[in-house]
Amino acid sequence: MSIQLWFLLLFFLLFHLLLHPCLPLSSAHPLDPLTAAEISTIRRVIQSSHLGASKSLAFHYVGLDEPDKTDVQAWAESATRGRRQRRRAFVVARSGGETHEIVVDVADASVVSDRVYRGSGYPIQTLDELEAAAALPLNYTPFVESARRRGVALSDVVCSPLTAGWFGEPGRGRRRLKLQCCVAGETANFYMRPMEGITVVVDLDEMRIIGYRDRVVVPVPKAEGTDYRAAKQRPPFALETKPGVVVQPAGKGFRIDGHVIRWSNWDFHLSYDARAGLVISLASVYDAQKGARRRVLYRGYVSEVFVPYMDPAEEWYFRTFFDAGEYGFGLWASPLEPMTDCPANAEFMDGYYATQDGEPVKLPNVFCVFERYSGDAAWRHTELGIPGQMIREVRPEVSLVVRMVGALGNYDYVTDWEFKTSGSIKVGVSLTGILEVKGTPYTHTDQITTDVHGSLLAENTIAVYHDHFVTYYLDLDIDGLNNTFIKSKLKTARVADGGDVPRRSYWTVTREVAKMEADARVEIGSVPAELLIVNPNKKTKMGNHVGYRLITNGAPAASLLSDDDYPQMRASYGKKQVWVTPYNKSEKWAAGLYVDNSRGDDNLAAWSLRNRAIENVDIVVWHTVGFHHIPYQEDFPLMPMLSSGFELRPSNFFEINPLIRLRPTKHTHLPNCTLIV
Amino acid sequence: MSIQLWFLLLFFLLFHLLLHPCLPLSSAHPLDPLTAAEISTIRRVIQSSHLGASKSLAFHYVGLDEPDKTDVQAWAESATRGRRQRRRAFVVARSGGETHEIVVDVADASVVSDRVYRGSGYPIQTLDELEAAAALPLNYTPFVESARRRGVALSDVVCSPLTAGWFGEPGRGRRRLKLQCCVAGETANFYMRPMEGITVVVDLDEMRIIGYRDRVVVPVPKAEGTDYRAAKQRPPFALETKPGVVVQPAGKGFRIDGHVIRWSNWDFHLSYDARAGLVISLASVYDAQKGARRRVLYRGYVSEVFVPYMDPAEEWYFRTFFDAGEYGFGLWASPLEPMTDCPANAEFMDGYYATQDGEPVKLPNVFCVFERYSGDAAWRHTELGIPGQMIREVRPEVSLVVRMVGALGNYDYVTDWEFKTSGSIKVGVSLTGILEVKGTPYTHTDQITTDVHGSLLAENTIAVYHDHFVTYYLDLDIDGLNNTFIKSKLKTARVADGGDVPRRSYWTVTREVAKMEADARVEIGSVPAELLIVNPNKKTKMGNHVGYRLITNGAPAASLLSDDDYPQMRASYGKKQVWVTPYNKSEKWAAGLYVDNSRGDDNLAAWSLRNRAIENVDIVVWHTVGFHHIPYQEDFPLMPMLSSGFELRPSNFFEINPLIRLRPTKHTHLPNCTLIV
Repeated sequence: MSIQLWFLLLFFLLFHLLLHPCLPLSSAHPLDPLTAAEISTIRRVIQSSHLGASKSLAFHYVGLDEPDKTDVQAWAESATRGRRQRRRAFVVARSGGETHEIVVDVADASVVSDRVYRGSGYPIQTLDELEAAAALPLNYTPFVESARRRGVALSDVVCSPLTAGWFGEPGRGRRRLKLQCCVAGETANFYMRPMEGITVVVDLDEMRIIGYRDRVVVPVPKAEGTDYRAAKQRPPFALETKPGVVVQPAGKGFRIDGHVIRWSNWDFHLSYDARAGLVISLASVYDAQKGARRRVLYRGYVSEVFVPYMDPAEEWYFRTFFDAGEYGFGLWASPLEPMTDCPANAEFMDGYYATQDGEPVKLPNVFCVFERYSGDAAWRHTELGIPGQMIREVRPEVSLVVRMVGALGNYDYVTDWEFKTSGSIKVGVSLTGILEVKGTPYTHTDQITTDVHGSLLAENTIAVYHDHFVTYYLDLDIDGLNNTFIKSKLKTARVADGGDVPRRSYWTVTREVAKMEADARVEIGSVPAELLIVNPNKKTKMGNHVGYRLITNGAPAASLLSDDDYPQMRASYGKKQVWVTPYNKSEKWAAGLYVDNSRGDDNLAAWSLRNRAIENVDIVVWHTVGFHHIPYQEDFPLMPMLSSGFELRPSNFFEINPLIRLRPTKHTHLPNCTLIV
Repeated sequence: MSIQLWFLLLFFLLFHLLLHPCLPLSSAHPLDPLTAAEISTIRRVIQSSHLGASKSLAFHYVGLDEPDKTDVQAWAESATRGRRQRRRAFVVARSGGETHEIVVDVADASVVSDRVYRGSGYPIQTLDELEAAAALPLNYTPFVESARRRGVALSDVVCSPLTAGWFGEPGRGRRRLKLQCCVAGETANFYMRPMEGITVVVDLDEMRIIGYRDRVVVPVPKAEGTDYRAAKQRPPFALETKPGVVVQPAGKGFRIDGHVIRWSNWDFHLSYDARAGLVISLASVYDAQKGARRRVLYRGYVSEVFVPYMDPAEEWYFRTFFDAGEYGFGLWASPLEPMTDCPANAEFMDGYYATQDGEPVKLPNVFCVFERYSGDAAWRHTELGIPGQMIREVRPEVSLVVRMVGALGNYDYVTDWEFKTSGSIKVGVSLTGILEVKGTPYTHTDQITTDVHGSLLAENTIAVYHDHFVTYYLDLDIDGLNNTFIKSKLKTARVADGGDVPRRSYWTVTREVAKMEADARVEIGSVPAELLIVNPNKKTKMGNHVGYRLITNGAPAASLLSDDDYPQMRASYGKKQVWVTPYNKSEKWAAGLYVDNSRGDDNLAAWSLRNRAIENVDIVVWHTVGFHHIPYQEDFPLMPMLSSGFELRPSNFFEINPLIRLRPTKHTHLPNCTLIV
């Protein structure tokens, strides 16, 4: 090879590198979750820092340090696509009894900042410390004695870690946990066999039991009838149904490109976070009429799940869980089972989280994505009004579902994001799994004469009343960044007496623009109203502000706790189902960044008290889907799905029904199916 | 053949007949709808009676005269099965200006009774007279002149019959109708092109125009953009989705035996009625644990659909439709389109109604029945709490859907009954079709300075605010005839100060038994409560009353009209979503038997005023699913589906989750599919 040729080759190589300065990152999206390799780098970087010397170094949260919204938006709009993306991680670690907030530059493998957090509250507990805490009673003499008193074999005992809450204790408090010990033995459903009457308090930093009381011995419910595993079931079996499978003769209609999913008129980014679980970003819808992709949701995820129980007994009063902030909704996500958790036509994605030691762990099948053919129509009409004609037009509905299941100990939360070709996003949350029950001497309701704070579901088994409040973070950017929240209130009006018509009343609509945060705290159902998020800078041709509206798909529920009660102070946003705040990068978690032992000083309601302007700025809508749960016997030993949710529906967003110009499905290509035996 | 052999054969035949005294009827169910042959018989019988001489004889309703509940129940419990069933029809006919209520014995081909109804209100209008009325303006000189003034070709005019309501007119009033005339022309969507400002009043008995006013000329909206027919669409088309079809490699799981449908643990009777449409009867669920079939719903159907519009203008104030009582929800049912209205795995059933002349007409594909594989789980749990074990159990959900679409002129109501293996019945009602719009000079919202009672969706097109209240008749017989309605109210309680625990509040449940009808008028959401229908005579082993509860799947809506307004008087039940009445065979229709020109003296609220005892008797629950409809541009020219509904969910009905003992689906037999090209 000649020298000239060498130079030419070198020139081409340099040219290529200049054009694509970070070629290996070209497919990366700025919001992609941390990879296993990145998590390993972060661990190495922090362990090489001054913190590495600490024996107590523990990683409590490792996640993407979200780039600035303007940068992400610029990238998404291609202005900076191809340019090297900043790639930073946000790490919450504990060391020497202190909470560190560390920002790591992943590409540079360096610590950008390390700040000690001195406010109230503690980070998400690590799975490792929960596991260690749960094992403590088995070697704790007083507990061994308690087990003996109850005739329970230690080898059958399973203890569950319960966050202890905050009940007015002064100072910063210790990182405490309480344990609920149960008896497994013949059953996998140990939750149904509590060793009632015992309080075990664990100091998590010291990892030892610091409080213990065996207040009262209550019969442990029997194992019989509690197991839910197929292998343990005996006749009579439930009647079966015939199998049915969705087949897609022309293949799947969506494409997963890294973490970006493209399907029909929707584009969005799907990411895993140990705290939030499933995160949808940059969801935009293609408007065929305009020939343009239009922004809808910058970011949406479960921000908090507040689950207060309603029994004031010593062993129960503190059970007021914050599943995202105390446990990590994503950390407890369950690998989804193909064919059952998601249908045969689903695709799956994995997630990665960091252990207490900072090591990456793969969560296989943490999400599934599938097209749903519900058998419903998207729109239809039969017209018989034109003499001599019979017109019928029907367009079947197809949607795309993205699913994650957070299996937080006993409960399983199925969280769905369903994208519809109509432009709607339907968010579903379904509860299943196992109730928390309380041991009781009662074996029949006839024996009960006082308030037992729950339902007697089996002998010695009371399922305690409780709530679930799933709060969604919805950073809507309807057709652009600056949006306004509007309550369209329906009000009865009188027809003037003595007018031309005998009608006496009608309702009309009063639009109330929420100018300040105080205007946007809504208890749904208190007055008839529609709740809209509009872009006041964009109008349809007719002059209507483009927007979306929030529709609840279940009866709304709000917290019934007293305002002066500690769990209510911590979840003080729980009495309104809707809040709107101006976008603030630091306001991500409805109950605050540090929820364990929190006091409500850094939560949604606290931020909202500043009463900032929210008109025509970048706003975030917070919506809580609530369930008051009075248990019934069908919930034993494992409850059937109970569902609720909401819909974000285009409302003057499109000029017309976007599916009118959908060509009807042709049925000439039906599948011919045979059994594979 | 020998004589002996002949005798033997005869003996066997006689023996057979004695055992089965009505062999040809053996498959007939006492609640089966009238067959075409039966409708013909009824017509013949009535035409042969004294009414036959009347030239004005018109059949307004021909349906099954429901046998007594005790007889049906006895039949269902096999006590009288095989015995000849009484087979009677209830006919409402008009003759000589009078309304006749005629009971016909179909088997005997005789009139059992013929009573002239002299109260207020008129029967459902016949399709024939609506068609005749709609044609009147075309030959009515003042209207021809109105069309000319607007530059509209008469051949393009389509008039729709609108019930006129009752607005305090004294006496019994005439059978009147008002007409809304529109312009079709290039579009099938004539509803979007009203000839605003004209009032046409028709006397139906005389079939002539008795009132006419052309008050104001308003521009007729243009045809462009209004058509929804596939053939009329031009690019840019909406993005398509890939086809997907449910295949059932082992075949369908349900059986249709006459009108009885058996699927998995459900058995029910499905019947068509010209007024109610889809009627579910004798729904019972098999309790595998008890080895017994248990009653749930004796009869359920859409009893009324009240749709008041909110514009007090002369041409609009009266638009307060009762779609079932004035038009016939079943009469306007739409033949369902295979593959789009219902999925590929659906089966279809026909219905039969009588024309004005009494002739039977087949409504093909009036119902579809299909199994839904939603891709959701019926229950699931992942258990990681037992050291060293990873347990995951998931059971996919399969349900059975029964569907009818009532296409009442412009609107299409998709009504679904979904039976779940969990024991739930989910009732869905979805709105689609076309809005009623008002012509207006406005072409942009900037021009609007007053309340226009609707939304400007296109040039010259205001979609008027309105409601839909779909009221269901639910004769629940939970595990037997006598039931009780209970409100389980959630109430906040205080923890005594200075107690052992620092918790300050919790909620608990107060069960309020509805003893009288007044106790059971519920505005859902006004206080947090669960609504139960229990059998106070049956308890679970634990001592809980067996029951079902009513759960709303959408935000509740109630009528906002003033109590003194005429449409509100007629639909005075509309301010509460739940009413409970003691079963009374004559109380079937929420707005009364005769709704056209009704005054509210024979409706659900009027009956409830008697405040009868409802505790531990046969009760009927009436539940209204409501929609306040503020139109948006997406609703133009045809609205995407908007859904709501409710669930009847077993609540202490089963001893345990009835699906725990459901064996997991095996996936060894997956279909191998190829395309049929």
